[in-house]
Amino acid sequence: MGGVKAGQQSGRAKRLPRAERERQMTDAAVRVFGERGYRAASMDEIADLAGVSKPLVYLYLNSKEDLFTACIRREAAALVAAVRAGVRADAPADRQLWEGLTAFFSHTAEHPDGWAVLHSHARTGGEPFVAEVGAMRDEIVSFVTTLIAAAAREAHGDPELAEREVAGLAQALVGAAEALAGWANADPSVSAKEAATTMMNFAWSGLGSLMDGQRWSDRRP
Amino acid sequence: MGGVKAGQQSGRAKRLPRAERERQMTDAAVRVFGERGYRAASMDEIADLAGVSKPLVYLYLNSKEDLFTACIRREAAALVAAVRAGVRADAPADRQLWEGLTAFFSHTAEHPDGWAVLHSHARTGGEPFVAEVGAMRDEIVSFVTTLIAAAAREAHGDPELAEREVAGLAQALVGAAEALAGWANADPSVSAKEAATTMMNFAWSGLGSLMDGQRWSDRRP
Repeated sequence: MGGVKAGQQSGRAKRLPRAERERQMTDAAVRVFGERGYRAASMDEIADLAGVSKPLVYLYLNSKEDLFTACIRREAAALVAAVRAGVRADAPADRQLWEGLTAFFSHTAEHPDGWAVLHSHARTGGEPFVAEVGAMRDEIVSFVTTLIAAAAREAHGDPELAEREVAGLAQALVGAAEALAGWANADPSVSAKEAATTMMNFAWSGLGSLMDGQRWSDRRP
Repeated sequence: MGGVKAGQQSGRAKRLPRAERERQMTDAAVRVFGERGYRAASMDEIADLAGVSKPLVYLYLNSKEDLFTACIRREAAALVAAVRAGVRADAPADRQLWEGLTAFFSHTAEHPDGWAVLHSHARTGGEPFVAEVGAMRDEIVSFVTTLIAAAAREAHGDPELAEREVAGLAQALVGAAEALAGWANADPSVSAKEAATTMMNFAWSGLGSLMDGQRWSDRRP
């Protein structure tokens, strides 16, 4: 049956440009890798879901490893682009952070398979994939570092925030956001806005202020 | 040479109780797994470092997978015990958090191979190991959840912190601490106290207070 289906589809395949066909294969691969993990995912299922023959997947994407790498790169680029696009550079610092977090949690909620590939499966897959995801993480940490440093400069002439401390705070923030994205995706009742709000209450207001009943608010006078 | 060494050592092995011998093997395994990762680690190197023959390692710990699982369980139990031991239950909430974080960062700094096994290699090793580490992480998250909930009750009759929000805050805190431990271990000049201070400034004071020059302090009037 798979053969019949593949035969039918390969007829149609010739009418699609290569880039479009590759996109379909990668879409299918992200879904299967996201649900099953790297090792358990089968190239048969990916080909089937993409509506093409398995040899065509190998012809286009070369190997399971290359296909998984292509998935990581595409999903990482999409996530970083979504966060950057969500932030208005002229907004106040806490507003920029709020916008970036909202964009981050919206994107991970809308692309749960992509997030699972990046956050869970790339690591369980092994070393070459860890390095791919590490590059994306470094880019996000560096973006957050710039944001915190700019906010500190903006707030004070003497912000008392050394470069080294800003680097630590950025690491903490990204680690917290990653953990919260996993938490939110495991519970469908947690919206992206709720995750972003929890994160702002945690990272901007701080637990100390929360204990005093002071919350972060996106409503400014 | 390895054979000669193993032969010499197996003479001594008979004079050691089994539990002690297993501890030596697990010590060696944590070091080799920590430095090389699960797949790249060799049982030859582990046996060599433990000063025993490879067959003896298999006899005692059964397989590479079982040995790695034993390493995860031991290092996870030690980390959880260190954090629990560091916290005085009668201290104020922020003090308890400070003590728990100091214990956490001290332990991960003193046991970098154990932390690498738990945080990096268990995940890259694959599914069964991910579940082992997940159990430890759940225990730490639940400990932090209890701490935040108690602090909120202590601070207010009506702390406005719903159970669900406390769960999210605990996830964020643990994620941030994990990221900071990785950052601190990658840079030997970052002390456990500096990492714990950064974490308190981030999680307790919040970025908003930091921008206003307000830091968390462990000195109370």
